[in-house]
Amino acid sequence: MDRPRVLVVAATHGNERNGAWLLEGWRRDPAGLEAAGLDLALEIGNPAAYAANCRYLDRDLNRSFAEPLLADPARTEREVVRARELLEQHGPGGRLPAAVALDLHSTTSAMGNSLVVYGRRPADLALAAGIQGRLGLPIYLHEGDAAQTGFLVERWPCGLVIEVGPVPQGVIDPTLCRRTQLALEAGLAVIAAAWRGCLRPPRHLVVHRHRGSVDVPRLADGTPDACLDRARQGRDWQPLRPGDPLFRRRDGRPVAYQPVPELADEPVWPVFINEAAYGEKGIALSLTTREVWPLRPGWVPELKALLQRTGPL
Amino acid sequence: MDRPRVLVVAATHGNERNGAWLLEGWRRDPAGLEAAGLDLALEIGNPAAYAANCRYLDRDLNRSFAEPLLADPARTEREVVRARELLEQHGPGGRLPAAVALDLHSTTSAMGNSLVVYGRRPADLALAAGIQGRLGLPIYLHEGDAAQTGFLVERWPCGLVIEVGPVPQGVIDPTLCRRTQLALEAGLAVIAAAWRGCLRPPRHLVVHRHRGSVDVPRLADGTPDACLDRARQGRDWQPLRPGDPLFRRRDGRPVAYQPVPELADEPVWPVFINEAAYGEKGIALSLTTREVWPLRPGWVPELKALLQRTGPL
Repeated sequence: MDRPRVLVVAATHGNERNGAWLLEGWRRDPAGLEAAGLDLALEIGNPAAYAANCRYLDRDLNRSFAEPLLADPARTEREVVRARELLEQHGPGGRLPAAVALDLHSTTSAMGNSLVVYGRRPADLALAAGIQGRLGLPIYLHEGDAAQTGFLVERWPCGLVIEVGPVPQGVIDPTLCRRTQLALEAGLAVIAAAWRGCLRPPRHLVVHRHRGSVDVPRLADGTPDACLDRARQGRDWQPLRPGDPLFRRRDGRPVAYQPVPELADEPVWPVFINEAAYGEKGIALSLTTREVWPLRPGWVPELKALLQRTGPL
Repeated sequence: MDRPRVLVVAATHGNERNGAWLLEGWRRDPAGLEAAGLDLALEIGNPAAYAANCRYLDRDLNRSFAEPLLADPARTEREVVRARELLEQHGPGGRLPAAVALDLHSTTSAMGNSLVVYGRRPADLALAAGIQGRLGLPIYLHEGDAAQTGFLVERWPCGLVIEVGPVPQGVIDPTLCRRTQLALEAGLAVIAAAWRGCLRPPRHLVVHRHRGSVDVPRLADGTPDACLDRARQGRDWQPLRPGDPLFRRRDGRPVAYQPVPELADEPVWPVFINEAAYGEKGIALSLTTREVWPLRPGWVPELKALLQRTGPL
């Protein structure tokens, strides 16, 4: 039975350098990563942006994997071209298809070590549950956000993002590297266990489900009129309740958190608070609700099945 | 007696946004800054880079104030053009000359709130001593570094940098804003006191004098072969002694600090450890030695004299 192929990507955003630092090391010395007996493909996601030490050149690569965009021959931005390349090489119909994609990111937010899962594909949830069972990492479930689509891992049969922070853009922080490596090794161990049929995930999965994003208050002309309240800086994953201080206007007036009606009755857990790259997206923080889900019986078999499948995925 | 004019600059580096956030606020509401009765000119140093949220467009503006560069009509990089503009408006021979320039910066390094002084101009040292007497801020004395020249404040009769960190590039952190404002207000209060002839600085000045910079170990082809040792991350202003861990190679081998001969007999205090913007300059950290200087009797009168001078400076 062929070993499953796993695509590990770093520097999908060119100024998130910790994963890329690790990846370059593993390329020279594969023994530096406990690959758990899997067949790994190691890729720098956006080599041109990585060389320039910026997030992207023409557009965000991690919003460039939407099918209509990729299929449109008129779209020739460098990141769209690169997305096609990655899929032609490692995608489900590619030359050397990978069953799983693990994408290594970092954030300026104080999110610690966490996982980002896009939507509710059973194999993704099985993988995330397995990693959470090993390391206890929080899971940010991103779904239902029409403004944010086209993520890399969505184009593979299974995949998730390993997100570490806080770290400034452009900085290699040895502690953050270590966290990244721990999460990746846990992910590979879970994949190997699922492939061998011996994955024993926890009975429950704790997810922080995306419920929307909040922009800073702005003036009529669009310029920001407030910054984050200092009581909220660095408090990712900590509950935010109606009336809690959230922003502070230029003139010193506090702006309290006011939930939208559908979130009126529950606390929210913010993530990506003050992430440097999200200013341009109009996101000061995102809001999640914390949910505990029993593991569905079909999830682990689905992950196992796609790992054991042979031929084109 | 005319009030002294002080130039306050923010976003000389376009992705250092805390000072710029404050400055935009003071433009709308001058009462938001205790100006100590001084005549302030408020400038975004590099508006184009600020709009693009990057450090610079063509070259580092804060290395573009060297006289030969400014005088060469063939040099038309956008930052050189902007440097000339700032001097034509606010420089010693400009339309509305400022006696002092205060330049608000931020760093990804854990340097806290500090002052950077370039060389040993008496007025600069008087101003720095006055601020240190009020707030206790450490002073990084940058001198004798042929690879780093052309700083903005050097072109004004008196000037220094207020440096705050750690903060990622592109992030507005309310705590860092507060620190910036405190240091600036202290600076303006010292200038006002010197102008009125009532400055009582401390009897001694503690400086951390620049003694050189250290790059990460590299392979023959120039690629980095090590990153900072995690024991050193975040330990700016803390003594580094021969044999202390400094870097860690890709293969895990530690690299200890080995002083150059002229620094063999004294501890050094590193600054700008792992500053994101200095990777491209080949600087992983800079080394200083800590010195206590008695205040020279001429310093405060020199500051006073240039503040009371009328006409072109």
